[in-house]
Amino acid sequence: MSVLRFDGRKNDEIRPVEIIPDYIMHPAGSVLISMGNTKVICTASVEEKTAAHLKGTGKGWVTAEYGMLPGSTGSRKQRERKKVDGRSQEIQRLIGRALRSVVDMDSMGERSVWIDCDVIQADGGTRTASITGAYVAMVLAFRKLVKDGVLDSIPVKGYISAISVGIIDGEVRLDLPYEEDSRAGVDMNIVMNEKGEYVEIQGTAEDGAFSGAELVRMLEYAKKGCEELMAVQKEVLEGC
Amino acid sequence: MSVLRFDGRKNDEIRPVEIIPDYIMHPAGSVLISMGNTKVICTASVEEKTAAHLKGTGKGWVTAEYGMLPGSTGSRKQRERKKVDGRSQEIQRLIGRALRSVVDMDSMGERSVWIDCDVIQADGGTRTASITGAYVAMVLAFRKLVKDGVLDSIPVKGYISAISVGIIDGEVRLDLPYEEDSRAGVDMNIVMNEKGEYVEIQGTAEDGAFSGAELVRMLEYAKKGCEELMAVQKEVLEGC
Amino acid sequence: MSVLRFDGRKNDEIRPVEIIPDYIMHPAGSVLISMGNTKVICTASVEEKTAAHLKGTGKGWVTAEYGMLPGSTGSRKQRERKKVDGRSQEIQRLIGRALRSVVDMDSMGERSVWIDCDVIQADGGTRTASITGAYVAMVLAFRKLVKDGVLDSIPVKGYISAISVGIIDGEVRLDLPYEEDSRAGVDMNIVMNEKGEYVEIQGTAEDGAFSGAELVRMLEYAKKGCEELMAVQKEVLEGC
Amino acid sequence: MSVLRFDGRKNDEIRPVEIIPDYIMHPAGSVLISMGNTKVICTASVEEKTAAHLKGTGKGWVTAEYGMLPGSTGSRKQRERKKVDGRSQEIQRLIGRALRSVVDMDSMGERSVWIDCDVIQADGGTRTASITGAYVAMVLAFRKLVKDGVLDSIPVKGYISAISVGIIDGEVRLDLPYEEDSRAGVDMNIVMNEKGEYVEIQGTAEDGAFSGAELVRMLEYAKKGCEELMAVQKEVLEGC
Amino acid sequence: MSVLRFDGRKNDEIRPVEIIPDYIMHPAGSVLISMGNTKVICTASVEEKTAAHLKGTGKGWVTAEYGMLPGSTGSRKQRERKKVDGRSQEIQRLIGRALRSVVDMDSMGERSVWIDCDVIQADGGTRTASITGAYVAMVLAFRKLVKDGVLDSIPVKGYISAISVGIIDGEVRLDLPYEEDSRAGVDMNIVMNEKGEYVEIQGTAEDGAFSGAELVRMLEYAKKGCEELMAVQKEVLEGC
Amino acid sequence: MSVLRFDGRKNDEIRPVEIIPDYIMHPAGSVLISMGNTKVICTASVEEKTAAHLKGTGKGWVTAEYGMLPGSTGSRKQRERKKVDGRSQEIQRLIGRALRSVVDMDSMGERSVWIDCDVIQADGGTRTASITGAYVAMVLAFRKLVKDGVLDSIPVKGYISAISVGIIDGEVRLDLPYEEDSRAGVDMNIVMNEKGEYVEIQGTAEDGAFSGAELVRMLEYAKKGCEELMAVQKEVLEGC
Repeated sequence: MSVLRFDGRKNDEIRPVEIIPDYIMHPAGSVLISMGNTKVICTASVEEKTAAHLKGTGKGWVTAEYGMLPGSTGSRKQRERKKVDGRSQEIQRLIGRALRSVVDMDSMGERSVWIDCDVIQADGGTRTASITGAYVAMVLAFRKLVKDGVLDSIPVKGYISAISVGIIDGEVRLDLPYEEDSRAGVDMNIVMNEKGEYVEIQGTAEDGAFSGAELVRMLEYAKKGCEELMAVQKEVLEGC
Repeated sequence: MSVLRFDGRKNDEIRPVEIIPDYIMHPAGSVLISMGNTKVICTASVEEKTAAHLKGTGKGWVTAEYGMLPGSTGSRKQRERKKVDGRSQEIQRLIGRALRSVVDMDSMGERSVWIDCDVIQADGGTRTASITGAYVAMVLAFRKLVKDGVLDSIPVKGYISAISVGIIDGEVRLDLPYEEDSRAGVDMNIVMNEKGEYVEIQGTAEDGAFSGAELVRMLEYAKKGCEELMAVQKEVLEGC
Repeated sequence: MSVLRFDGRKNDEIRPVEIIPDYIMHPAGSVLISMGNTKVICTASVEEKTAAHLKGTGKGWVTAEYGMLPGSTGSRKQRERKKVDGRSQEIQRLIGRALRSVVDMDSMGERSVWIDCDVIQADGGTRTASITGAYVAMVLAFRKLVKDGVLDSIPVKGYISAISVGIIDGEVRLDLPYEEDSRAGVDMNIVMNEKGEYVEIQGTAEDGAFSGAELVRMLEYAKKGCEELMAVQKEVLEGC
Repeated sequence: MSVLRFDGRKNDEIRPVEIIPDYIMHPAGSVLISMGNTKVICTASVEEKTAAHLKGTGKGWVTAEYGMLPGSTGSRKQRERKKVDGRSQEIQRLIGRALRSVVDMDSMGERSVWIDCDVIQADGGTRTASITGAYVAMVLAFRKLVKDGVLDSIPVKGYISAISVGIIDGEVRLDLPYEEDSRAGVDMNIVMNEKGEYVEIQGTAEDGAFSGAELVRMLEYAKKGCEELMAVQKEVLEGC
Repeated sequence: MSVLRFDGRKNDEIRPVEIIPDYIMHPAGSVLISMGNTKVICTASVEEKTAAHLKGTGKGWVTAEYGMLPGSTGSRKQRERKKVDGRSQEIQRLIGRALRSVVDMDSMGERSVWIDCDVIQADGGTRTASITGAYVAMVLAFRKLVKDGVLDSIPVKGYISAISVGIIDGEVRLDLPYEEDSRAGVDMNIVMNEKGEYVEIQGTAEDGAFSGAELVRMLEYAKKGCEELMAVQKEVLEGC
Repeated sequence: MSVLRFDGRKNDEIRPVEIIPDYIMHPAGSVLISMGNTKVICTASVEEKTAAHLKGTGKGWVTAEYGMLPGSTGSRKQRERKKVDGRSQEIQRLIGRALRSVVDMDSMGERSVWIDCDVIQADGGTRTASITGAYVAMVLAFRKLVKDGVLDSIPVKGYISAISVGIIDGEVRLDLPYEEDSRAGVDMNIVMNEKGEYVEIQGTAEDGAFSGAELVRMLEYAKKGCEELMAVQKEVLEGC
């Protein structure tokens, strides 16, 4: 744990983060989030129609879609034009659940917020960067609804952010870039709220299994990372 | 917490489990697993061709598919004939990863084991029952390959089983049937090996979030459940 | 014709039949039908909406879907997840027509009965077993509607059953298992009602053609088979 | 039975038939067949590759596709651009089986004949007209292969033709146009070879059922129709 | 330019044109257009519903679909049953735009005219033949609506026709058959109205590029061709 | 023509153009091109396999795909996950043809360059911006192949660029943003090479038609625009 990682970081250190708000002109909310070399455009578009299963209930919905540009990955990724692959579906379901966990769907009216997370450059951690960035885009979209007089207040209960953590060569490490992610025996994604509670834990042993002690260490690192990301989110949202 | 659950179980008690081996005549391995009212046919078919990305490496592969019969659920479930829905994809990816974590792909040769988990009656916990049952079907298929002289030994490193655990009305409960699952604020699926290590942890707060203390309790219950399921697996595998 | 078949049956003899009613707990009606090694789960689910082309006419509809589990056949059958293959479509259209021929759609109200026939183990004659089993599942579903006070009486005009018959090595044989079916020069499926009338005749010469005399013999055997199957259906329906 | 039908025909009379050979310039064989107002373009194209399952066996294959132009039917028929509907699949499978029953696949070499039957105007009996016309197109294609020195002789064992027959208002009638077909209680399609043997019998009671006596009468009319069609086929094939 | 083309035509000469009106009995309007060996069935069907985006506006719509029969081309063309290929989409969008440019959508009421252009034999110029033929089919359909008292007058502002022109071996040539089209360095399709104005110009250099002078010559030839085609359209429409 | 446009430009003036090279780290070549508010990421990825139809010929291929991010347009654009819509197909075919017109496919070896043009913000002219940007990305990719010793020289014959031009309120205007494009009666896209020759002309009268004089004026403006864009391309390619 004393040796630095290939990019000079310590094991419990996240990559440089930048969130550029209002990155795209048309959607109600948008950001470009960068975590190291991972770059995701997150947009939040408002549709004046709720999800089909909520019609007539007075409730709204937040739904998410995730994609990667063909040129975003090391070898060109084929477009998902015939069907969405399992990984994309899993990720967009995760993003949607994470965001809905902090939205008061009862007070947002019968409308939908469509979250789109499109990875323009991938270097590990695209799903967690998507959640962290999409949160900001969503709040910006709700702000616009308040500003336009459509809503009285922003129907969001608190911050959430997400980070990856893993075990590489026996060491627990925070915020894995592709170089580490591809060698990780264990890969975990954590979504956390501002009270330090878990919204989602997804831990997978690609190779073998992990012990209870390793789990505890991973959760500890993840907490540190999520708190730092929420600090960036706050700074961005207070600054625009 | 002292009060019994609607079906008379204690909070840390699993439902009655039955695994019927060799349930279907054609595949190399098969079982019908019942966990309470949840019933899944798990089959393991051998194909003399490995996955495309392993061609020429000498390695084999284990892949899983998951489906539900239309009549298996409370209201008829439409067949996935145009596309596989996100939930099914997520589940079958989970089953595949879990099984591969205990298979020595290097020593199974360039062949594939196709795992099919088809739910004929659903009452909560279908994905974890699928993993527990599919493990037995897979071992039966490998036994057949050994018996037929194709393999020297069974390329499996040890047992795995899986169980769900959740928080309902503030109480942690093990092995949720549909009645509880539909009301659960937190839902977690755990795959564990025989050393008590985690192969997969997937915890989701459908509503809100969960604390570290709740997480610890859920992991403890899950361990008890997985150990009991492995005992059933052993009994079945030793008896046939 | 004096020599017994490979499974000990005479040429005009059907395989052992078993119909287990109420096999699945959720649908209004369900059975597991076995004809020798062929096993099909048939369920009948009620939807309070008629077919689109009957909306507003006061009439109901019966529609059928047919599938095979991947592990049901000798070599694993790929799931029909992108498109339904021609054979499945042909079979489910046949099942639907056969059942509708005995249902009084005018007196069942603007609702649909969805029949699902899922083959869990295949050994020839899956389409005819599906019809024979689905008939019982459908009647059980209508009984439930009567019991629940939704219908005054069961809108079914009489029994139907179905059987296969074929010509193998120049001999007419009843109820072909896979071993015979795969060698049959002529394959015929017959659906018959309790008056001994034909609801459907589908006869195909896989290889060559068949004469009028052979046709007469096949129809005679089929009649015997259908009558025996209707006796089993009656016994099951009267016993539950 | 003494009263003439709406188009002036007797019950056992077919409509005027015309088969124009070499109707389309590119395919090896082609015809335009008209039976009354039903008009189908049938083409036979040769591909120097057999069906996948016959690769390396030395055998050839005949496969058929069937379609209807959008403007061919009374109300515009939507194109089957996303999936082929069940009816089309059923019909093209029937056409393929019928043609293969008279082809000696062993002596045609490892090549395929693609039969395309495209209905340009529909007035009942499109599937039987397709078979009757496709037979001629196929023979023309084989003749071309013989002429080009690719085959020594035409690998066809004898004629086949097909016709529909049905029961309308209690009367058995031959070769139903749409006006009768839409009112028919029983609808039967028969494919027959030149020895008067059956290649395929498909009889369906749209409404109710039919007796053995009715079946006999239908088969008798069908035989008359098929013989007359084979006479036309012969005349065309001998004339070009 | 002094040498004749392989089929005896001069560079600025179109192929023999024939337009047979009322070719198919069901649709409101239909033609078979032949330009040399290129033959297209064009039908115009009326639906009493406008396009979705015009609902409630009082306006109608004209939409076009284009297809090729499998046997229409030199080597058999696969059916577009899973998806429509890019070329077909491009062509049918072109046909639709061209026809709409001369229709007064405001005065045709909230209904749609569906144009179907199905190539039964292809020898170059199928898209331009489709436009020229579809125009006549569409006018025939509108005439029927006037005759039936649905419309007061034909909502068409004037004639349009279309032709191809290209550069082969350095020479500008009009109305390219496949033999020339496949060798053409530049291929241009022009849709023109009766005032000699351009409705659409689509010029593509398959190989290299073309100069302004070549463009002028191509436009001049195209004008001659379009005018000759409009003369044929007028003759047909005045004669029926 | 003397009055300025809503954004202050003259009729023959293009919007501010910026091309940022090496915008994405993984592909061999990439740019972000902005033309006013239209922003497109263009990447060029090399695959060591030529197009299927060129296998064994020694020739390479350039193929293009085009997409729009959901948040790129005024109202959220649905992802093309089931099928590619006609417009996208038309555009990507155009981009591919345009680029191939300047590539010497004989000397690039049996490999493919995949061009991906993904619009992240749309404000008119996305297809022409894609061509102009993709040209630069493609050259950068070829440069990399030369630098890596794979190719001896860059197999590109010269520059190409593309621009739109249209007629709004009777005036010919260059480089239409969405505000003008949506009102344009005539819309034309032109691809030109550095000799001032046309590679592609696509002119469409959305409403009515255009005269020969208007065509001449449009071509003149387009030439000016294309030349200015090629100047920017040269500056970028010489500077990196």
